[in-house]
Amino acid sequence: MINFTATYTDQYQLAMAHVYFENGQKDHTAVFDYYFRKLPFDGGYAIFAGLEDLLSKLENLKFSDDDLKYLREQDFSEAFLQYLKDFKFSGKIYSAQEGDVVFPNRPILQVEANIIEAQLIETILLNLLNFQTLIATKASRMRLVAGNRKLLDFGLRRAHGPGGYYASRAAIIGGFNSTSNVVAAKDFNIPVSGTMAHSFIQSYDSEIAAFRAFAEGRPNDCVLLVDTYNTLKSGLPNAVTIGKEMEERGEKLMGIRLDSGDLAYLAKECRKMLDEAGLEYVKIAASNQLDEYVIKSLLEQKAPIDVFGVGTNLVTGNPDAALDGVYKLSMSNNIPRLKISESLSKVTIPHKKQVFRLKNTNGELIGADAITMREENGIDRMYDPQEILKSLPVETCETEALLHLVMEKGKRTSQERSLTEIAEYSAKRLNSIPEEYKRFDNPHIYKVGISKKLKKEREMLLKKYKV
Amino acid sequence: MINFTATYTDQYQLAMAHVYFENGQKDHTAVFDYYFRKLPFDGGYAIFAGLEDLLSKLENLKFSDDDLKYLREQDFSEAFLQYLKDFKFSGKIYSAQEGDVVFPNRPILQVEANIIEAQLIETILLNLLNFQTLIATKASRMRLVAGNRKLLDFGLRRAHGPGGYYASRAAIIGGFNSTSNVVAAKDFNIPVSGTMAHSFIQSYDSEIAAFRAFAEGRPNDCVLLVDTYNTLKSGLPNAVTIGKEMEERGEKLMGIRLDSGDLAYLAKECRKMLDEAGLEYVKIAASNQLDEYVIKSLLEQKAPIDVFGVGTNLVTGNPDAALDGVYKLSMSNNIPRLKISESLSKVTIPHKKQVFRLKNTNGELIGADAITMREENGIDRMYDPQEILKSLPVETCETEALLHLVMEKGKRTSQERSLTEIAEYSAKRLNSIPEEYKRFDNPHIYKVGISKKLKKEREMLLKKYKV
Repeated sequence: MINFTATYTDQYQLAMAHVYFENGQKDHTAVFDYYFRKLPFDGGYAIFAGLEDLLSKLENLKFSDDDLKYLREQDFSEAFLQYLKDFKFSGKIYSAQEGDVVFPNRPILQVEANIIEAQLIETILLNLLNFQTLIATKASRMRLVAGNRKLLDFGLRRAHGPGGYYASRAAIIGGFNSTSNVVAAKDFNIPVSGTMAHSFIQSYDSEIAAFRAFAEGRPNDCVLLVDTYNTLKSGLPNAVTIGKEMEERGEKLMGIRLDSGDLAYLAKECRKMLDEAGLEYVKIAASNQLDEYVIKSLLEQKAPIDVFGVGTNLVTGNPDAALDGVYKLSMSNNIPRLKISESLSKVTIPHKKQVFRLKNTNGELIGADAITMREENGIDRMYDPQEILKSLPVETCETEALLHLVMEKGKRTSQERSLTEIAEYSAKRLNSIPEEYKRFDNPHIYKVGISKKLKKEREMLLKKYKV
Repeated sequence: MINFTATYTDQYQLAMAHVYFENGQKDHTAVFDYYFRKLPFDGGYAIFAGLEDLLSKLENLKFSDDDLKYLREQDFSEAFLQYLKDFKFSGKIYSAQEGDVVFPNRPILQVEANIIEAQLIETILLNLLNFQTLIATKASRMRLVAGNRKLLDFGLRRAHGPGGYYASRAAIIGGFNSTSNVVAAKDFNIPVSGTMAHSFIQSYDSEIAAFRAFAEGRPNDCVLLVDTYNTLKSGLPNAVTIGKEMEERGEKLMGIRLDSGDLAYLAKECRKMLDEAGLEYVKIAASNQLDEYVIKSLLEQKAPIDVFGVGTNLVTGNPDAALDGVYKLSMSNNIPRLKISESLSKVTIPHKKQVFRLKNTNGELIGADAITMREENGIDRMYDPQEILKSLPVETCETEALLHLVMEKGKRTSQERSLTEIAEYSAKRLNSIPEEYKRFDNPHIYKVGISKKLKKEREMLLKKYKV
């Protein structure tokens, strides 16, 4: 549904590209790292999402005639415009797998391309990966507390415009079961769900008439919204009546939905009334400003809720505005590059790199990833990238390389993975991470170290550039 | 760039539409109100945005062949699918003008259509208006504190996916001057801006070489980023050198940009060094996690910053996740409808309505809007919608009707307004609002009242529906 052309970028990418082009640097190579510095939600992990979308966009990225017409009105040379006319992304990408559990301050993805291509795709890359990673992480936190209960995405109306399209996709990666967003369901093959709004009830002269009309029209997915007038005095009794009428027709009422009031109390009362009426199979759904904390609290109160519908707090990643993912130059024209900062934690790490997840001899995660130069095949001792005196021997560890070649010469190196595959992979990966990294309060920190070689290279460059 | 088809909706809209259709209610009429309950950012006003986009989308909204193929796999009747095949929005819309200053709990827009059409467009309407209103309001708060200084939108990389496209549009309505977002600039005719990233500096062997290359390649919009290595010891001295070289060529360095460190201190030092070098005309731009509070603080410290580049906090509306705009049924099949709630503040207001902004005999705003039934031509006394004993005589007030017919039979009633017109209108309207409604801390509350007729109608319905 959503098409991007190559003007889905920041103007400075074009300005810089213009200069590179005019200076004869268009075939210079560059290596950029994508990573983030701070975990969202004060949590202990993030779920990497957006990769397959990004790869699809990159395979087809070009400037349209309309784009070129627009750019022609600006301060660009004709030769540069001709270059843009034939522009396509022809580089290489190494990346963590979509759905993997990722941590701050280590590369999640590396782009290798000529410097103009690598620069022009920065914005779209950050735009897609930052947002989907934020939302997949938010979704996974709700999955952690919801156990096997159903989680539905209801957020499109409160999403940031068409950002909602990708939010629905990312929610599935994080463990949601379905979405109300029809276009996302269609395009990403997500189960779709949705039944009725208050307006439906209001548009009939009585609640029971509305319920009856709906049950007759949608017998296979009938979930009655019971709080339009009064949940316990009107909505629930009417739902019971309809449930019994459906039974007489050999049909089954699927559920009721609570959308206001004290959800814990109402769910308990509704469960009791449904059970007493012999409608034990009718599910209870709840919605209204839910997030991982509210869901956790409801379940701690033993609210018998089977289905949670989540809107705003899912699709916006509230309370976090954005993931702070960045895209930093680590080599250009085969020369390792560094960005200096007052704080060592913000000094970049040069070179083409690999990231290894470390396990002990029993195959258990040791709670640390190690960054090496790409040609290193493993690691004996890892060094703290900030505290120069700290190091840890890891020569007995098993290593799992996290970055894989996913794009070469601008084409995917393997088939696109389906959303279901990605979600299953993500659940498996998150499941393998110990609980202490997944708790909400003061989670354990998943450490990062760098190899001796990388440390030396970085120190050398620091000396060279430090003013 | 972004195309919507009619599946840009929630599944329950289709489920309800299906029932209406099968029950022979497809020609029933409905009136829905769009409004929000809570002002964003704990502020005193909001800037209404997104209308022209919405109208454009509605004029062209239909189900694509792909949509219909997808829906055919679901539980819908063939007759209903045929209906969807010919679906278009053919209703009426009354609305506040885009860019107007709006307040909570009074209709900003009313939709009148057959009930299926009115229901199917709910999601797209909320999705576009909630988000753009949030961002235009955020932008306007920065404009209030920035005075005549330039405000640039740098946010696409941190926006919620393609939500950034509309964020850039809404920022202009709120008073921003330009955007880095090329596709939004192109499609909405927004001035575009952007010069260089740290990676550009890093990709050269020295900072001065990078600056020189850029100045030669982009002499007309040369803004040098001075904090890659060390702002005061390296970046600024090198920028001065380049500025003087440009002077020799008869060119002018446009500006320098600070993107880290203590912006107030650095801006003062840089201004001093630039002035001493005779580069008084060189502007200072600043970026790095700005918002209205940081800009206000910088200017209170007399930081000589001419241009502010704002990213995350603008395009995400941080710290607010979303505007809580809702779409509530106020009539169906010509019968006034009500949604009950425990709290009177959440009980809807039935009927087709008009909203008047009230002025005293000197033409000054009195700080209140009045809601009437649409056929009332004015108002003598307005009643508090929540506190039933409170009322206020307003018979001497001048009234300005805020809701205008903007769409009839699914077509705009007048030409699309350009973004520039909307932004100018918005600035004028905001300017007319007294300061006390615009301050950030504990702003005055812009009151709302309802007419006697509306009050009676609402009370009658409340009695009828109250369980």
